[in-house]
Amino acid sequence: MSIRIALMGYGNLSRGVESAINQNEDLELVAVFTRRNPEGVKVRTAGVPVVSADEIEAWKDKVDVLVLGGGSATDLPVQTPKYASMFNVVDSFDTHAKIPEHFNNVDAAAKASGKVGIISIGWDPGMFSLLRMVSTAVLPEGNNYTFWGKGVSQGHSDAIRRIEGVLDARQYTIPVDSAVDAVRNSENPTFTARQQHTRECFVVAEEGADLARIEKEIVEMPNYFEPYDTTVHFISMEEMKANHSGLPHGGFVIRSGVTGFDKEHNHVIEYNLKLDSNPEFTGSVIAAYARAAYRLNKEGATGCKTIFDIPVAYLSSQSAEELRAHLL
Amino acid sequence: MSIRIALMGYGNLSRGVESAINQNEDLELVAVFTRRNPEGVKVRTAGVPVVSADEIEAWKDKVDVLVLGGGSATDLPVQTPKYASMFNVVDSFDTHAKIPEHFNNVDAAAKASGKVGIISIGWDPGMFSLLRMVSTAVLPEGNNYTFWGKGVSQGHSDAIRRIEGVLDARQYTIPVDSAVDAVRNSENPTFTARQQHTRECFVVAEEGADLARIEKEIVEMPNYFEPYDTTVHFISMEEMKANHSGLPHGGFVIRSGVTGFDKEHNHVIEYNLKLDSNPEFTGSVIAAYARAAYRLNKEGATGCKTIFDIPVAYLSSQSAEELRAHLL
Repeated sequence: MSIRIALMGYGNLSRGVESAINQNEDLELVAVFTRRNPEGVKVRTAGVPVVSADEIEAWKDKVDVLVLGGGSATDLPVQTPKYASMFNVVDSFDTHAKIPEHFNNVDAAAKASGKVGIISIGWDPGMFSLLRMVSTAVLPEGNNYTFWGKGVSQGHSDAIRRIEGVLDARQYTIPVDSAVDAVRNSENPTFTARQQHTRECFVVAEEGADLARIEKEIVEMPNYFEPYDTTVHFISMEEMKANHSGLPHGGFVIRSGVTGFDKEHNHVIEYNLKLDSNPEFTGSVIAAYARAAYRLNKEGATGCKTIFDIPVAYLSSQSAEELRAHLL
Repeated sequence: MSIRIALMGYGNLSRGVESAINQNEDLELVAVFTRRNPEGVKVRTAGVPVVSADEIEAWKDKVDVLVLGGGSATDLPVQTPKYASMFNVVDSFDTHAKIPEHFNNVDAAAKASGKVGIISIGWDPGMFSLLRMVSTAVLPEGNNYTFWGKGVSQGHSDAIRRIEGVLDARQYTIPVDSAVDAVRNSENPTFTARQQHTRECFVVAEEGADLARIEKEIVEMPNYFEPYDTTVHFISMEEMKANHSGLPHGGFVIRSGVTGFDKEHNHVIEYNLKLDSNPEFTGSVIAAYARAAYRLNKEGATGCKTIFDIPVAYLSSQSAEELRAHLL
């Protein structure tokens, strides 16, 4: 029997999870919940009902795991605890500073309901966190570095789109080659934001817009662009659609550490992702952790879990015996 | 109170574990057991007794985790089950084909004694297994590739040393650049052994030895060298000591997979290790899993565990709260 998964929301991330479910025989998409008018949502997988979020309680016994596709700013702080009181849930909460608070809220709700809530799943937080944590435990004396890109930052692209006179925008985050080389060479450098990443922006402006003013507003935008070397290219809508319609991303975490009684040996651990589709890869990670949520709860586990708390065997559709025989 | 660790044997790997213990404040080396004459073994850490393996039973209540530094061919198949009947144990058993049998033997012994036995810890098997397994679960449609090197293979170096007329030898395993590029480019190639790695040998021969015969014996050696393109360099003992005395190694595992309803998006996950000292890095991984063995057993777990079965939070000296706040 398949593990019955439902999605809350049907944006990029939820569609990425749907695509991943389609690739895993033991997972089945059974419903998409929406806060909009269900008739306006067309689900790609045949036969999957779209249901108003108001009616979700009626699905308590028909869904094994609910995946929350909402945003970390306002959706997930409310939704994850709320739905953990009815379902096993998985989210991709990524506001690093608020993770402890979010954990406590989800933990209380999931313990009360006897369900499992897995938070902060994806690639950062998510796979990158797993690698940072394991590598730090293995090489306790050293430094962690996280590089993002080359890839599209949706938050930075959105920030440009809010500028007056901008019709569309795509922002690429790019690691600085010399910074990457220094880390890989065990030089253990200290970086400012500017030294580690550059930002490249492709912008479609309204006809007759003041391009110099738009460029100035971008490069001087606090937090988003001011701390970085930013380049701005104005392009046509046709060029945007032809060359910048994908959502590729990636990045790498590096642990550079030493061993030996005299700390004489350097070691570099690098975990590197090159992703054609950020939402589909994130969705694939979430699908594997949805499997884990179901299994953990079936074995009696309850409460909030992070990627640090879950044996990786729970992620696989293969049995423990198969994993030992083929992947150890 | 520290976690009390003891070593069985005092070869390269055990000394790597000792070095790692020295870097972790919550771990303490309390004894080294040997099957040789204890008086012939000098331990680097001050005040650590060297004890005959025959007397190990008297240490049952004085050791929290026993690390087994022996070899997979003959030592560990006997030692790990034997000592799991007295102690929590960790080994680095690396005969992939015999892991299921070894698991079952250790599991039976550790369940009977109420202890935890963690097997096949290091980097391959070990960290590479963890990455292969997780990446396969996340990207179920794809291929795994493992490249080793550039680094010293101790098994291949030993094989050359057994040839008549050879005084010393060092063998480097080297990934083929074009093969690596093809995998990183999502080409999903199929390789013969020869296409994926080359072998480079540095050999010190006896004076007057038949170098052509030695070279022929190396490059034609079945399994070890015949399936590869092998180059042989004859060097002096001085050059060997000056340039080839370290034990660097490394390698990388790559998962190349697709997502999307039309499998239209490629993703590449790479985990890459560059290690100045193979035994010290392996020892560092083992030290972290020794911590896990102690904690798991303290919580009531018993039996054999692999890297797939253990939540990574158990590897760290930090609390779950600290990990969530700083590394998630």
